[in-house]
Amino acid sequence: MHKLRHLLTPLDLSVPELDRLLSLAGEIASDPAAWQSACAGKKLATLFYEPSTRTRLSFEAAMLNLGGSVLGFSSAGSSSVSKGETVADTIRIVSCYADICAMRHPLEGAPWVASRFSRIPVVNAGDGGHQHPTQTLADLLTILRRLGRLDHLTVGFCGDLKYGRTVHSLIAALSRYEGNRFVCISPEELRLPAAQRAAAGDAVVETADLEAVLPQLDLLYMTRIQQERFTDPAEYQRLRGSYILTRKKLSAAKETMPVLHPLPRVDEIDPDVDDDPRAAYFEQAQNGVYARMALILTLLGLAPDPLDAKEEKEPLSLPGLHCGDPRCITGSAERPVPLFVRAADGSLRCWYCGRPVTE
Amino acid sequence: MHKLRHLLTPLDLSVPELDRLLSLAGEIASDPAAWQSACAGKKLATLFYEPSTRTRLSFEAAMLNLGGSVLGFSSAGSSSVSKGETVADTIRIVSCYADICAMRHPLEGAPWVASRFSRIPVVNAGDGGHQHPTQTLADLLTILRRLGRLDHLTVGFCGDLKYGRTVHSLIAALSRYEGNRFVCISPEELRLPAAQRAAAGDAVVETADLEAVLPQLDLLYMTRIQQERFTDPAEYQRLRGSYILTRKKLSAAKETMPVLHPLPRVDEIDPDVDDDPRAAYFEQAQNGVYARMALILTLLGLAPDPLDAKEEKEPLSLPGLHCGDPRCITGSAERPVPLFVRAADGSLRCWYCGRPVTE
Amino acid sequence: MHKLRHLLTPLDLSVPELDRLLSLAGEIASDPAAWQSACAGKKLATLFYEPSTRTRLSFEAAMLNLGGSVLGFSSAGSSSVSKGETVADTIRIVSCYADICAMRHPLEGAPWVASRFSRIPVVNAGDGGHQHPTQTLADLLTILRRLGRLDHLTVGFCGDLKYGRTVHSLIAALSRYEGNRFVCISPEELRLPAAQRAAAGDAVVETADLEAVLPQLDLLYMTRIQQERFTDPAEYQRLRGSYILTRKKLSAAKETMPVLHPLPRVDEIDPDVDDDPRAAYFEQAQNGVYARMALILTLLGLAPDPLDAKEEKEPLSLPGLHCGDPRCITGSAERPVPLFVRAADGSLRCWYCGRPVTE
Repeated sequence: MHKLRHLLTPLDLSVPELDRLLSLAGEIASDPAAWQSACAGKKLATLFYEPSTRTRLSFEAAMLNLGGSVLGFSSAGSSSVSKGETVADTIRIVSCYADICAMRHPLEGAPWVASRFSRIPVVNAGDGGHQHPTQTLADLLTILRRLGRLDHLTVGFCGDLKYGRTVHSLIAALSRYEGNRFVCISPEELRLPAAQRAAAGDAVVETADLEAVLPQLDLLYMTRIQQERFTDPAEYQRLRGSYILTRKKLSAAKETMPVLHPLPRVDEIDPDVDDDPRAAYFEQAQNGVYARMALILTLLGLAPDPLDAKEEKEPLSLPGLHCGDPRCITGSAERPVPLFVRAADGSLRCWYCGRPVTE
Repeated sequence: MHKLRHLLTPLDLSVPELDRLLSLAGEIASDPAAWQSACAGKKLATLFYEPSTRTRLSFEAAMLNLGGSVLGFSSAGSSSVSKGETVADTIRIVSCYADICAMRHPLEGAPWVASRFSRIPVVNAGDGGHQHPTQTLADLLTILRRLGRLDHLTVGFCGDLKYGRTVHSLIAALSRYEGNRFVCISPEELRLPAAQRAAAGDAVVETADLEAVLPQLDLLYMTRIQQERFTDPAEYQRLRGSYILTRKKLSAAKETMPVLHPLPRVDEIDPDVDDDPRAAYFEQAQNGVYARMALILTLLGLAPDPLDAKEEKEPLSLPGLHCGDPRCITGSAERPVPLFVRAADGSLRCWYCGRPVTE
Repeated sequence: MHKLRHLLTPLDLSVPELDRLLSLAGEIASDPAAWQSACAGKKLATLFYEPSTRTRLSFEAAMLNLGGSVLGFSSAGSSSVSKGETVADTIRIVSCYADICAMRHPLEGAPWVASRFSRIPVVNAGDGGHQHPTQTLADLLTILRRLGRLDHLTVGFCGDLKYGRTVHSLIAALSRYEGNRFVCISPEELRLPAAQRAAAGDAVVETADLEAVLPQLDLLYMTRIQQERFTDPAEYQRLRGSYILTRKKLSAAKETMPVLHPLPRVDEIDPDVDDDPRAAYFEQAQNGVYARMALILTLLGLAPDPLDAKEEKEPLSLPGLHCGDPRCITGSAERPVPLFVRAADGSLRCWYCGRPVTE
């Protein structure tokens, strides 16, 4: 009997599980038609409490490519959310309608709530600024298909490294492979937070100078710098040019260095880069479909290699303690039971949003 | 040749037809996979002029489970309604696009207008505060599957019995079976209206005390009490606790008494009841899918047992008379031809919304 | 190898191509079931940056009838557009998700932008007041199926001939067939613009009197007169009655004269005309589905008769020149490369919106 598993963060899959999933995604990419009936009769629910066309359509394309079908909603406005139904009740109902679901929610931790009450696999399709694990799968698949490996790479991350959740997730995912180095390229205001830097250990080098480090990179991951992040607009105007990738800058990079971007871009990659063979960001969108196909097959127990029997650590219930951060679902009207995880060093984190909590 | 039939109210089906439909739904429930291609090539249109995720997804899941496909809109905002097209013209167009349709509309009687111009079966998926017949099918199927019969039951209805259309419809439906008694549990402000009480005859008992009557019930149907219904907020605060079902209160009920609720709930059923085997409200959502599958098959003429040849009573056109209630579609810019039905006692009702009309 | 083709205007198809497409649509109409698996495994993306239920559902019904599937969005609000992604980047992503797309956009020329970056066929499903070629296909198919030919017809156009893009497109399309005459019936304020009249040559006759010309028409194409088009509301009130088609007026027309309307209608065709055998406007909606089925098959290279190898004239890039009309996508934040087409007489037009541009 297939055991129910969810994908809430990229680290929910062990490295061997992840390797098998990416290998399956690669097989799918080389012959998509072979899988066109693999999910016949299966239904995917897309529960998008906030719009995200690209992510939603990628999940839908993945399920349709597998011969399955799709139902759902694309914004809270056209859903029953306005009637005040909890995520917990919604997922119990949706478990009657579909075989697997992808949930996007503005509050961090919402998919964690869903996972506790669901009878079907829940995939986190983005919860606030917290996690977006299928983007990481798309990123990893693109690296693997371009460079043939996920280890011993010098990986450049450029742009907003402070708020960019895709950057944090990809660093965490690549840190599990041997010999990777991370070159973090950003203005002072948008440096990688201490927690993420600590997690990656001495593998992190920081710089503000994209051009200087470009020649040494095996891979460049671009992200958008949002004007709103700066207190001083003049500072933004002064800096932004340095973090725009142009064909000219690219001439100093290795011939094999793929350029990734989670999209949408605004102007951080000049359109004249689009035709360069190193531009991998549209290919990344295509890989996102293959990765999601592999994920759906795997979570439904239809992949050739099943997931391992995983022993879940039960989160802690600590009476009197409460995260309640306004960005976390525990701070909303949903009011889920407060739950926590204790790290090896004795510190506590909210089980839903992962934020440190003081006892 | 299969004759075109619609489902506008639960009573549109005769008791034998209803029994056959529920029996088919039961067969589907015991082996859903047997029906997975029954509607291959058929299309369901979901015409939702106001959002109702749960109802819409239930219809969509039903059609997809039958191997059919779905198109439609989920709110008036993303439809042509804003361009002022009438329901009459819309359904004529949709008749070119789909084989069956489910219509949700904020105005009472809108699906009646559609039924007059449609070339495909119209299912009322909720018209204002008027009718919602597929909810009643889900309720009946849940009772039948839990208790094995629809007659000789003592049925408790608790909460807002004044405005709750699901309650009115279920009482009307169960009144057609022998030996049912209805225990109506509500605050004074929210008692069952006179018309509905009259329809059920001496089978109705009224009380304000849930705990006192719980032990005698074969079935409990809970509904939500909305604060807006009370003129005095303090009165609402004083009363609401008595109509909240808790595990403690439930201990006095029969071991076999299922608890139903049309959902969404807010706090009228405590979450600690969810794990009690009597909690049947999530199962009810699942039964809603099976009931809708049976209904779609039946209305498309694809069920093993066809519907009977029904002689429709033509509604009356009475020049000069007009319902025009603002909640009724006759009071809107749609301006359908005013039509009426005369009861055995000579009284008149609007054919669209069912409201009494004075000549 | 099938060459990528788009449908941006009705004239993108040569007359022989159009004849083959309409002939295929006719075959489909006579036996739709024969085509129910023709697009199995194919996906249509409906990219509707503004709502248009009828058009969207017609495309979706067409693809579902062919055994394909559908994904997309139905308004910009539930899409990533709000995040400022360009049409160019969106279509590159959607090319990874679907096999063909239908795009509706409030800005003129948006599908032209898409066509330059797309790897899949782009169908213009309406760009502002500019083009809506699949409506024209539906119109032509209706005429052909009703009258057996597209030439030597006296065609009446009634209503708003100034702003009605469907009228302009149909006149342009019918002008390519021999012996057609166009009787343009409108108030002074809403006459056919000079450019469209010039294109049709001496085949155009103008009048303000519907009743006078009705008996000579082989076909009547009605459109809606919008009050907003008149500077003087009293003038609108005085005139509108003359352009409303009633059963009474219709009695003077030929027995075989079909009445077409692109829908939605408001009151320009009295409902008492709906039952007249000449009323062809709901049939037109049905033909729209068949025409779109034929189009999808043809653009995907799945039709029995392929499109011809077409040599596209490259549009001109003229440094310093810019259309920038606020209704055109060149006047928006998208900022596509300005492109132009030079006519035989030396005049220039914007390649995107078709507006004259002065050098």
